[in-house]
Amino acid sequence: MKTMTDYLWFDTAKHREFINITEKVEELVQRSGIAEGFVLVSAMHITAGVYVNDAESGLISDIDEWLEKLAPYRPDYRHHDTGESNGDAHLKSLLIHHEVIVPVTSGKLDLGPWQQVYYAEFDGQRRKRVIVKAIGE
Amino acid sequence: MKTMTDYLWFDTAKHREFINITEKVEELVQRSGIAEGFVLVSAMHITAGVYVNDAESGLISDIDEWLEKLAPYRPDYRHHDTGESNGDAHLKSLLIHHEVIVPVTSGKLDLGPWQQVYYAEFDGQRRKRVIVKAIGE
Amino acid sequence: MKTMTDYLWFDTAKHREFINITEKVEELVQRSGIAEGFVLVSAMHITAGVYVNDAESGLISDIDEWLEKLAPYRPDYRHHDTGESNGDAHLKSLLIHHEVIVPVTSGKLDLGPWQQVYYAEFDGQRRKRVIVKAIGE
Repeated sequence: MKTMTDYLWFDTAKHREFINITEKVEELVQRSGIAEGFVLVSAMHITAGVYVNDAESGLISDIDEWLEKLAPYRPDYRHHDTGESNGDAHLKSLLIHHEVIVPVTSGKLDLGPWQQVYYAEFDGQRRKRVIVKAIGE
Repeated sequence: MKTMTDYLWFDTAKHREFINITEKVEELVQRSGIAEGFVLVSAMHITAGVYVNDAESGLISDIDEWLEKLAPYRPDYRHHDTGESNGDAHLKSLLIHHEVIVPVTSGKLDLGPWQQVYYAEFDGQRRKRVIVKAIGE
Repeated sequence: MKTMTDYLWFDTAKHREFINITEKVEELVQRSGIAEGFVLVSAMHITAGVYVNDAESGLISDIDEWLEKLAPYRPDYRHHDTGESNGDAHLKSLLIHHEVIVPVTSGKLDLGPWQQVYYAEFDGQRRKRVIVKAIGE
């Protein structure tokens, strides 16, 4: 059995941002020498997400608007009594989910033709991390 | 360590459909000879989902209506500028999530008494795939 | 390869409850002797969830209110034709998701500084279970 652990760092220019990390994950998996297994891609923060969907800019705008509609910014979240103002970012992270497992087959990410791995930042402009961990053989 | 990789194909008659795939996953796991491990069941498309919940037809109608309410069909998604009309199917897929991990214990899916694995099609009437990949020993 | 399988039992006093189970999961992983791998934490019921987010009581109230808004109690779910009254709990479970995978690195849960593992009960006051299953080496 082989394992590989690495971390990707982000410091986005914008408060909210969607970053395609498929190639970086693919590169780490290839370097690991794992041919058959799973790779976990998981945000290490509670105001960011990781998801798999299409690399189409119109759709990404749709996703952003939809998340704002279902988990809107509001001044009056109770979480803000702590001095924070990012209650909405926590809810957006829960909605989109903070992690995915990608299958690895014959040394490659076994994704469908349109599936891409995205890091979704909901409270950016600070240094944040994603763990990429693979197990297999 | 053992691994098993297989694919299930779907071509639904309806635009939206919910298909119980628990037995098929169970069968593949048994054939793999894996006694202890994880099986990943993951849609390879960005307009479909995989989830675990109850095999009760009333609940499935409730889930379908609820997804339509939270991620409705709309003509004006930006994604539709590409010629597509399935923006809602992408959002429904993100909401329900596209994959689950099922634990395998003593050669069986280690699910609770009411837990069933479902393929949720949100943009059907075309050939689509789910990967079933297990690792363990 | 090593595997570890255990179950946590809950019988909450309240109908809805959020329980931090990070330490229990950590303890099970340490006892397993697994240094590198994944631990799956998965509700075995269809009216409960498992998620990773902040251990902040204001935020937990925000999450609870938000789930009630997006997946409200309603008398008229079709699922209730079976005699049940917990349709909302199924939808809340789907929204928050019923499981997480936590990476294990150097024998510890490889979580970010604010990440905690929560069991979310949406239909409590009865005995329910979570599986904690790790694989690795």
